[in-house]
Amino acid sequence: MERIERVAFIGLGIMGSRMAANLCRAGFEVHAFNRTRARSEELAERHGAHVADTPREAAAAAQATVTMVVDSPDVEQVLLGEDGAAHGMSAGHLAIDCSTISPEASRSIGARLRERGVGFLDAPVTGSSPRAEDGTLTIMVGGERADYERALPVLEAMGLLVVYAGPQGQGSMVKLINNAVAAANAAALAEALVLAERAGVDTDALVRVMAAGSGDSAMLALKARPMLERDFSPLFKLDHMLKDVRHTLAAARAAGVELPLGERIERLYAEASERGHGSDDFAAVVEALDREMRPISR
Amino acid sequence: MERIERVAFIGLGIMGSRMAANLCRAGFEVHAFNRTRARSEELAERHGAHVADTPREAAAAAQATVTMVVDSPDVEQVLLGEDGAAHGMSAGHLAIDCSTISPEASRSIGARLRERGVGFLDAPVTGSSPRAEDGTLTIMVGGERADYERALPVLEAMGLLVVYAGPQGQGSMVKLINNAVAAANAAALAEALVLAERAGVDTDALVRVMAAGSGDSAMLALKARPMLERDFSPLFKLDHMLKDVRHTLAAARAAGVELPLGERIERLYAEASERGHGSDDFAAVVEALDREMRPISR
Repeated sequence: MERIERVAFIGLGIMGSRMAANLCRAGFEVHAFNRTRARSEELAERHGAHVADTPREAAAAAQATVTMVVDSPDVEQVLLGEDGAAHGMSAGHLAIDCSTISPEASRSIGARLRERGVGFLDAPVTGSSPRAEDGTLTIMVGGERADYERALPVLEAMGLLVVYAGPQGQGSMVKLINNAVAAANAAALAEALVLAERAGVDTDALVRVMAAGSGDSAMLALKARPMLERDFSPLFKLDHMLKDVRHTLAAARAAGVELPLGERIERLYAEASERGHGSDDFAAVVEALDREMRPISR
Repeated sequence: MERIERVAFIGLGIMGSRMAANLCRAGFEVHAFNRTRARSEELAERHGAHVADTPREAAAAAQATVTMVVDSPDVEQVLLGEDGAAHGMSAGHLAIDCSTISPEASRSIGARLRERGVGFLDAPVTGSSPRAEDGTLTIMVGGERADYERALPVLEAMGLLVVYAGPQGQGSMVKLINNAVAAANAAALAEALVLAERAGVDTDALVRVMAAGSGDSAMLALKARPMLERDFSPLFKLDHMLKDVRHTLAAARAAGVELPLGERIERLYAEASERGHGSDDFAAVVEALDREMRPISR
């Protein structure tokens, strides 16, 4: 297979614009498409990218296409819709979707692209915009191993940890499972902090003890302070976390299994969302626990 | 208050023998009692401790008494039973219990000692025997702040992180909450790993991704490998973890609150225990999840 030198990049949002800039810096010839054209023009001015008028035009000038959009329908639209990238791809082209979509959607899109002789990788990322900027994202990849190996130079220009997770859909699956674990750890932390508050425990002492031992977690480091201060300025919205937990439950059902904890976690986040915290940071799950832990009648 | 120079140490098990040795190294005159006398004699030979025939005799020679035994009845026995340490204490003596007992038991024992003019701190520790050996335990302390400050040189000879958690019982409370969070994070991890196995995900890739991001936790670092290999060699027994979760639920009820997640976690560990994993490491909670996630009939 020919080495990838020309890359179409579709979706220049907060994450995508930074990822595309890193592809330019790494020496790839980048053909950028974004609904708001000003963002492609900015990338062209600052990093020497080429501006495309449609996803199709971007893909036609490249050997691989990276998509970084919001959800499954957006990925379908920019790849397979009218003037979608697929119409500009010749056989041997490789599509790499870095959006977070369900494993089933990844498999369905992959099947349709392969009919056209186009390879497809589901390659969602974790990490915030500073890590997108530094090129230190974590990227988990599902698809054919040969496609993964061909995509590696592209992925390594955007990520620090790039892992092959298995067949089509498994990149998405790893991302969902990671997020479901984060959701559960955050809920366990929230319950612990509410109990500590109600029982008159020094919460600073509790947080220091947990950080030094078996109660430590990434969620403790990131969310203990916002939870204690009830500061829910959104870094990752509660409704997005709820969506990921539900995708995880659906994927588990598709695999024929139940998730007893996951189901309990889903109800807690749903409750927080129903109480108006959907657009808050998911640290607001503490509000569901604070309200649910009602005094017991004696 | 006079500075503490002479310390009685009661309970020379795996943890206690190492903690007492560190008191000797720090220059305290240690009067040791242990049910199996050979352990006191070993401490005397190797570290210059004095051997006492009863807890009462040990306490009578000291200004403070550290207890490190198994559960509430043992603490009551060695402090308040026949020939218990309390009978050797004069007013102004300070009792420091490093065992893990319930907050209610701590408050009850403290009240009875204070009637005798004796101070009491609940000061449970976290950390394994290597950290007991190095004097790098975490120690969380409940009781009068003046007693805490007087005890600090003793505690700092055994621990690296020593935190004041609040009034009597709050040291125990912090330890329980930390352990309940560890139990919850371990259960969430177990569920994630079982789902990954069933869905054909590369579990090594999953663990690497979680370790690099929002799914990270102390439990991931300690228990992912034993769970994946179903290696349950006990470092911390499942029944001990179940006991701590139940103590936490009882403390929450005493504070008039419910723990919806804690209750679900309790059922999972109880199920694993009923299936014969009580003496296994608590990583065996994965067995409850592996069995509970039964295929859904379609």
